[in-house]
Amino acid sequence: MNLGFIGLGQMGREMAGRLLDAGHGLIVYNRSAGAAEPFRSRGARIASQPEAALDAQVVITMLADDAAVDAVWVASGLAERMPSTVIHLNMATVSLAMGKRLAALHRKSGSRYLSAPVFGRPYAAAKGQLDIVVAGEEGAIEHCKPILAALGRQHFVVGSEPHHANIVKIARNYLLATIIESLGEAFALTRKSGVDAETFLNTITSTAMNAPAYKNYGRMIIEKTPQPTFPLKLGLKDVELALEAGSDTRVPMPMAGVIREQHLAAIAQGYGDHDWAALGEYIAASAGLK
Amino acid sequence: MNLGFIGLGQMGREMAGRLLDAGHGLIVYNRSAGAAEPFRSRGARIASQPEAALDAQVVITMLADDAAVDAVWVASGLAERMPSTVIHLNMATVSLAMGKRLAALHRKSGSRYLSAPVFGRPYAAAKGQLDIVVAGEEGAIEHCKPILAALGRQHFVVGSEPHHANIVKIARNYLLATIIESLGEAFALTRKSGVDAETFLNTITSTAMNAPAYKNYGRMIIEKTPQPTFPLKLGLKDVELALEAGSDTRVPMPMAGVIREQHLAAIAQGYGDHDWAALGEYIAASAGLK
Amino acid sequence: MNLGFIGLGQMGREMAGRLLDAGHGLIVYNRSAGAAEPFRSRGARIASQPEAALDAQVVITMLADDAAVDAVWVASGLAERMPSTVIHLNMATVSLAMGKRLAALHRKSGSRYLSAPVFGRPYAAAKGQLDIVVAGEEGAIEHCKPILAALGRQHFVVGSEPHHANIVKIARNYLLATIIESLGEAFALTRKSGVDAETFLNTITSTAMNAPAYKNYGRMIIEKTPQPTFPLKLGLKDVELALEAGSDTRVPMPMAGVIREQHLAAIAQGYGDHDWAALGEYIAASAGLK
Amino acid sequence: MNLGFIGLGQMGREMAGRLLDAGHGLIVYNRSAGAAEPFRSRGARIASQPEAALDAQVVITMLADDAAVDAVWVASGLAERMPSTVIHLNMATVSLAMGKRLAALHRKSGSRYLSAPVFGRPYAAAKGQLDIVVAGEEGAIEHCKPILAALGRQHFVVGSEPHHANIVKIARNYLLATIIESLGEAFALTRKSGVDAETFLNTITSTAMNAPAYKNYGRMIIEKTPQPTFPLKLGLKDVELALEAGSDTRVPMPMAGVIREQHLAAIAQGYGDHDWAALGEYIAASAGLK
Repeated sequence: MNLGFIGLGQMGREMAGRLLDAGHGLIVYNRSAGAAEPFRSRGARIASQPEAALDAQVVITMLADDAAVDAVWVASGLAERMPSTVIHLNMATVSLAMGKRLAALHRKSGSRYLSAPVFGRPYAAAKGQLDIVVAGEEGAIEHCKPILAALGRQHFVVGSEPHHANIVKIARNYLLATIIESLGEAFALTRKSGVDAETFLNTITSTAMNAPAYKNYGRMIIEKTPQPTFPLKLGLKDVELALEAGSDTRVPMPMAGVIREQHLAAIAQGYGDHDWAALGEYIAASAGLK
Repeated sequence: MNLGFIGLGQMGREMAGRLLDAGHGLIVYNRSAGAAEPFRSRGARIASQPEAALDAQVVITMLADDAAVDAVWVASGLAERMPSTVIHLNMATVSLAMGKRLAALHRKSGSRYLSAPVFGRPYAAAKGQLDIVVAGEEGAIEHCKPILAALGRQHFVVGSEPHHANIVKIARNYLLATIIESLGEAFALTRKSGVDAETFLNTITSTAMNAPAYKNYGRMIIEKTPQPTFPLKLGLKDVELALEAGSDTRVPMPMAGVIREQHLAAIAQGYGDHDWAALGEYIAASAGLK
Repeated sequence: MNLGFIGLGQMGREMAGRLLDAGHGLIVYNRSAGAAEPFRSRGARIASQPEAALDAQVVITMLADDAAVDAVWVASGLAERMPSTVIHLNMATVSLAMGKRLAALHRKSGSRYLSAPVFGRPYAAAKGQLDIVVAGEEGAIEHCKPILAALGRQHFVVGSEPHHANIVKIARNYLLATIIESLGEAFALTRKSGVDAETFLNTITSTAMNAPAYKNYGRMIIEKTPQPTFPLKLGLKDVELALEAGSDTRVPMPMAGVIREQHLAAIAQGYGDHDWAALGEYIAASAGLK
Repeated sequence: MNLGFIGLGQMGREMAGRLLDAGHGLIVYNRSAGAAEPFRSRGARIASQPEAALDAQVVITMLADDAAVDAVWVASGLAERMPSTVIHLNMATVSLAMGKRLAALHRKSGSRYLSAPVFGRPYAAAKGQLDIVVAGEEGAIEHCKPILAALGRQHFVVGSEPHHANIVKIARNYLLATIIESLGEAFALTRKSGVDAETFLNTITSTAMNAPAYKNYGRMIIEKTPQPTFPLKLGLKDVELALEAGSDTRVPMPMAGVIREQHLAAIAQGYGDHDWAALGEYIAASAGLK
């Protein structure tokens, strides 16, 4: 397929690479041009304007946040100018409000739009091992399946309105935050009574909490992973997306409210650029543990 | 082995039955005598006084809460009068403070004491499928292994001080509470944007939250299980054990503080005798969902 | 003085009226023209474009929220086109971010800008009994004193940077929210044990909580004031301004996090258009009280 | 009047002194006898057993907490042995559960009991400037008025059941905790944006928060009062009394839940023996302020 790809950040560049390797034709665009350059030698065309990336069957956007989507896709008028033959496949994590706004824009201009945010860190993207959540019109999803297959190990169709995928992604990332916070509190509680963290983690992940999220974040909290692959300050952003969606749709989330403030305290005390798992380190420190 | 067994509540009676089936000699005691009677025909002796249950190699206690332990075991002076040849194997969930108090009492009177609380509901107890957390002196644990084998599918030695097992049990039950609350919030958030709960649950339990706790509680929240096997008001007790331990050992647990109040609101609004999973129903109602 | 006045909502129209009564020349502008009309017969000029309101020594803006300020003052380019002889006196409650943005815009275009949000409901505005918090350059404040005197019973200079006034206003409104929430919880707690709310309120406001906020909100909670003068959903907006400022400046506010969710639950359950004091009614209901 | 007085701690000794100065006959008892001795020269009799203090018209107890009340008054059987001619005037802060238990004990043994906890720190007690909250049978209150007059500047009859006074005291102390926490958050928020704390405090206490609690705690937070007159760890006890009462009577108090954890974090980080106002210092530190 001929694909446009906009947004070559940590995640986007791995995903674009996968698509090239899978044999798709790619025209890539990134706001700071340097990130696009390496793709030239791999056979991709480089677009100097985002508009050029619309010359494709599907244009994938993987922009950092609402502001980037707004700048590159909305304020620029790209959404309106996209031909009705193209599908816009937005794979970034955006707010529920932005998800609805994009859907409305495309509906108004008669163009096709899917939302398909992903679960997974860059190394999973590099191996095509993402979990993808997709929502929107069935025919468009069918059309995009080769893309989903190249990028993910599985995908989930979660609804017929694109914003359904946004809210699923937001809610699931919020659950990750609750796992990190709750593990942090449970580690602090057990450690302060003399229980080895490794022992505690093994006990819970051998029983009812036998899940990757507990194993991975538990391990990262224990090992104080020095190389952050997803910084805590972006974790705050994820929790804020949940709270913002909760506010917009009138869903009280008291636990989310508290978790947000824990992130802020951690950031105020210097953990913002550490891995998200460092929330556990902050919690231990707040309990007076070293 | 000749075993004493004190406390034939919902859990205790299933566990005592398993031990009989495994061929152990049993002398059982329960404060209200009716619960003990059915064990007579299965070959157990019935003790009319708890003291009689001490005539054994190991005496297992499975009492409902701190107050019951205090009445039957502490205030009665049983702890002091237990012969030093007997091991007290306390399998109930008690507070960290009570766990330490029992250990101190036995240490003082020179008798042997292990703490070994269990994970699992009555139907798991009936099938010998409990997960058991045990802590205390190594030789005593070795001695009790046939008991652990008859009752559990696995056991975890979590420390050399009996209270280590209490705090692990308390922290793990607290994690269950965080899972129910977070699922409740995530379901409310996604449902209010039009996503089917089943679809959301399938997505998260096929990815990073692929764990029994998410699957089971997720299902119970969706199906509004009418028959409670563990009522919400006991869930509150578990969260309060975590908060009490946190207060005693100076471990701030802001998320636990909020979850406790969610339980109280649910109870004040009539969900106290529903299953613990009904917390999800309360959260949906608080978001204005039917 | 010749004054421009932009924004004739519930508060703005009372304030504009006071300024006319005090003998100032007024040119008024409102986005929906109907609100401006009544001022014609009182001697004001009506501006059909906001730009016309710049023909004054001081132009006062009293717009509803960030979005309104953005539309009328920022996106319209008014900020840049304002002559350097004019002072922009922004008396509305805006976010800390918007407060800083306005200051930066005016600094860049070399024009004069003060922030002067007010405490008080419309009936206080009508009587010139507002409390005004002002921040910015000293000379400009001096120049505006006749305006502050006409509108307020007192004013407080809280800093030399305009955004100082924004954050004081935001923090103080947050304190109001904490008072309503805490009174709601305390009323529920005492009522459920049989204590008359009136008796409790009298006790605390005759002692350490002898302050207008406790007296007024306490009374409104007890009397379930049917006519809202400040709706609960705007209370939510105020709490969100505090949380947003906290997030932007990295100040954890765990209590604010919880209060926000209480507002959302109250709104989801139908109290959004009731007076802010109805938060107390929601809390009583959540405790199972009628 | 001939009065018994049990409990000569920081508050009790000042109150006993006031009663002597007012001309009442006093027989005093304290568990550690040293505290009673100084009263001998002032004309009081010293009881070597608490029982001796019952030889009076009214016996006042001012014991530190539930455990002390339990030991001295309940477990000792004093409550049952008190003659029906005596009134037990309990002026200490105890839990709602203990308040009800004492009332039930006295009702059962046919003796007279009032609950009358006080607001105020030791220096207010020394000057007879306490605020007293009293509840119970009208005739008994009438009888005790000379005592209330000697100790307090005012008293409030808050109900006909003694525990009404307990819950009012608990709720009001909880309100103090909300004031300290909210001031701490508001100071941190404004300071981090460059506003002087003194300026902020003056603004709010000159307007809607013009109350002693805001003035006094605001000042103590700013001045980091080195000499604690009421340590933060006792503040935690007060918040826990509110939460315990909330749990017992099924009143959700989400804000209280969060405030408790803030106290624990402050204690874990070394502020436990500082004045209660040091909660504000902890909050500033958690925001990264010096």
